[in-house]
Amino acid sequence: MNVRETVEKMAREARTAARNTAALPTGVKNDILTTTARMLVEQRDYIQTENARDLEAGREKGLSPAMLDRLELSDGVIDAMVRGLEEIAALPDPVGEVDDMVRRPSGILVGRMRIPLGVVAMIYESRPNVTIDAAALCLKAGNAVFLRGGSEAVHSNVALGRILREAMTASGADAAAVQVVPTTDREAVNVLLEQEDCIDLVIPRGGESLIRFVAANSRIPVLKHYKGVCHAFVDRGADHEMAARIILNGKAQRPGVCNALETMLVHEAEAETFLPFVAARLKDAGVEIRGCEKTCALVPEARAAVPDDWPAEFLALILAVRVVGDLDAAMDHIDRYGSRHTEVIITPDYANSQRFLREVDAAAVMVNASSRFSDGGQFGLGSEIGISTSKLHAYGPMGLRELTARKFIVYGEGEIRE
Amino acid sequence: MNVRETVEKMAREARTAARNTAALPTGVKNDILTTTARMLVEQRDYIQTENARDLEAGREKGLSPAMLDRLELSDGVIDAMVRGLEEIAALPDPVGEVDDMVRRPSGILVGRMRIPLGVVAMIYESRPNVTIDAAALCLKAGNAVFLRGGSEAVHSNVALGRILREAMTASGADAAAVQVVPTTDREAVNVLLEQEDCIDLVIPRGGESLIRFVAANSRIPVLKHYKGVCHAFVDRGADHEMAARIILNGKAQRPGVCNALETMLVHEAEAETFLPFVAARLKDAGVEIRGCEKTCALVPEARAAVPDDWPAEFLALILAVRVVGDLDAAMDHIDRYGSRHTEVIITPDYANSQRFLREVDAAAVMVNASSRFSDGGQFGLGSEIGISTSKLHAYGPMGLRELTARKFIVYGEGEIRE
Repeated sequence: MNVRETVEKMAREARTAARNTAALPTGVKNDILTTTARMLVEQRDYIQTENARDLEAGREKGLSPAMLDRLELSDGVIDAMVRGLEEIAALPDPVGEVDDMVRRPSGILVGRMRIPLGVVAMIYESRPNVTIDAAALCLKAGNAVFLRGGSEAVHSNVALGRILREAMTASGADAAAVQVVPTTDREAVNVLLEQEDCIDLVIPRGGESLIRFVAANSRIPVLKHYKGVCHAFVDRGADHEMAARIILNGKAQRPGVCNALETMLVHEAEAETFLPFVAARLKDAGVEIRGCEKTCALVPEARAAVPDDWPAEFLALILAVRVVGDLDAAMDHIDRYGSRHTEVIITPDYANSQRFLREVDAAAVMVNASSRFSDGGQFGLGSEIGISTSKLHAYGPMGLRELTARKFIVYGEGEIRE
Repeated sequence: MNVRETVEKMAREARTAARNTAALPTGVKNDILTTTARMLVEQRDYIQTENARDLEAGREKGLSPAMLDRLELSDGVIDAMVRGLEEIAALPDPVGEVDDMVRRPSGILVGRMRIPLGVVAMIYESRPNVTIDAAALCLKAGNAVFLRGGSEAVHSNVALGRILREAMTASGADAAAVQVVPTTDREAVNVLLEQEDCIDLVIPRGGESLIRFVAANSRIPVLKHYKGVCHAFVDRGADHEMAARIILNGKAQRPGVCNALETMLVHEAEAETFLPFVAARLKDAGVEIRGCEKTCALVPEARAAVPDDWPAEFLALILAVRVVGDLDAAMDHIDRYGSRHTEVIITPDYANSQRFLREVDAAAVMVNASSRFSDGGQFGLGSEIGISTSKLHAYGPMGLRELTARKFIVYGEGEIRE
């Protein structure tokens, strides 16, 4: 079989198996997850042998140390996968939940029942642990899963997929609900994105170019976010100590992630005192400031910001800083340059907090808290499979519930429509 | 300006105006709707003069009487638009609703606030009253709206759009949030479907070919249903009187709509007595039966079904009938030929009712009730803007809530992430 035939066959198998997965009782789904966890421990040698083939090939190809690090299934990474599986097994099963049940004037009783989406495809880059994490969330939500990892991790991914399928068979489920693309051929992604009759949703995870490629070429709905350009607005009267703490945490705690801060906006009434105060703290943390003209006048070590700095996702210890006249100017800046990910106001003012929460269009809008809380675990969703910055279906971190849909159910006693 | 420039400019205007629409208080949105209702009455002559131009052109083009009927803005149709506007004004405003508010271990308070989607585009065919109905629902949910009606109704649609914009201006809202494509050029649809930066959702309403065209060519997410191939399964032991009533209502009350029945499945234990009983009633109602071999043996006037009859949406007084061995065979048939719209079981059996509700994959699954209830109004959503038979974002009838999304909101008191 060529790549097209292989991927099409896998997609059909996933579609067929999805009916079995959707009907699995919670206990069986949890069995699959805990059995997988046990097998990961038992088959650690096998996994690390396969992973070594990828690492060896990666070294030959000249992958950077950072890339090789992401690729490695160390004992620590395997232990983290095991913990993740146990956590997902412990989460409540969303499938079958019924709510909004009402008696209608016609006599029928109408409600909504939560159901799996069907077949969920993940397209991701180097980290092979995504194979386990993503499959576990999809399966717990009753979905079949179609996995296409990075080509440099293909042996690791196939090994992890094999363990998942063994665990499914051992638990009495249809193993065809887990499909791992076994080839490094890039054509596989193109064919995958055409399988709209067999795949219900695609979630790309990786760099912006991967995500843009998937969004531009998919016939299947895509849930995605391109980047996180998060702002914090320090309002008039903000507590300087609190503001500095939130800014430092947002920028410096983990600069390489999408909920890190990229831009600080400061009310002009606070600029003169707050900017030198926070700049000293930022300097201690090794953060470079790229400021507007007013900022540079108040902070001698700041570099002048260029227009490209305002929409930039630095993912580094760099912070763009701008002084603004008022709340409206701050919200205009966010509307223009933000990426609809996470936006923060630091304010003592009740009315401004309410306006910011209501009017700012982003997946997460916060008052007096660090942008770093924008995360499925921190929000209480359990594990997250990704983040959506478009509003259809899901907006923000996506957990188990976001991997389901709701159908209408009707209990009647012979009612007909007049 | 050529068509491309016109549509692109309109899309940008809608995007800009959407921020204003999203922030409108409920009272202003209701004002817009009731003012529009009043203007429809006051400007009845203007509307009907513009509509007469479309009707005249339609007659010259040789449109069928049914098409001309759909095109006509008679007094009755205008009165129905007025009532629709008043009903939508009376519905609760979903925007701003906050739920799922919880205190997290970190100390932050996290919840979800309902927000508009942004800009919603409708692409529809001949009925110009959709211009008012769709715009009213979109505006009440805080969205800007981009309308592209049938080319044969262009004068009517432009007139109705003008009234909507007058009502918006009179209520102090930004009239640019209502955009009606003023041209009959088909290229306008192609350009519209490329405006993914300005339009958040496309809802096509019309024949299957229109919907397939939109789905195949859109870069914007599409909510759609192609057709309604609805089944009713008459289970072993079903009350024959109740079953016949539900079948007759499903098939004959309004055969041209998507929630009408197309196929009846009958448990073999009931076939011998139930089929002649229901066939007599169906005959009285003028319904033609296309039956499987067993059906034809029991119902002499039945025609033999051909393979194309099973997936057919007849939209006419024709019913496909098949005898099946048990519930599983019925569910297999539905899984194979159904369109995921509405599926009904008529049963006295508790366990079978629960299995059917749980296992059948359709937007609405019903026990002992007519498929004709599958409707936003009957389900209690208020008016509906369409029906979705794919699971992303909405599944089934879509009301005001389905024209919104939810963002996360966080109330903090200086919390940072450890």
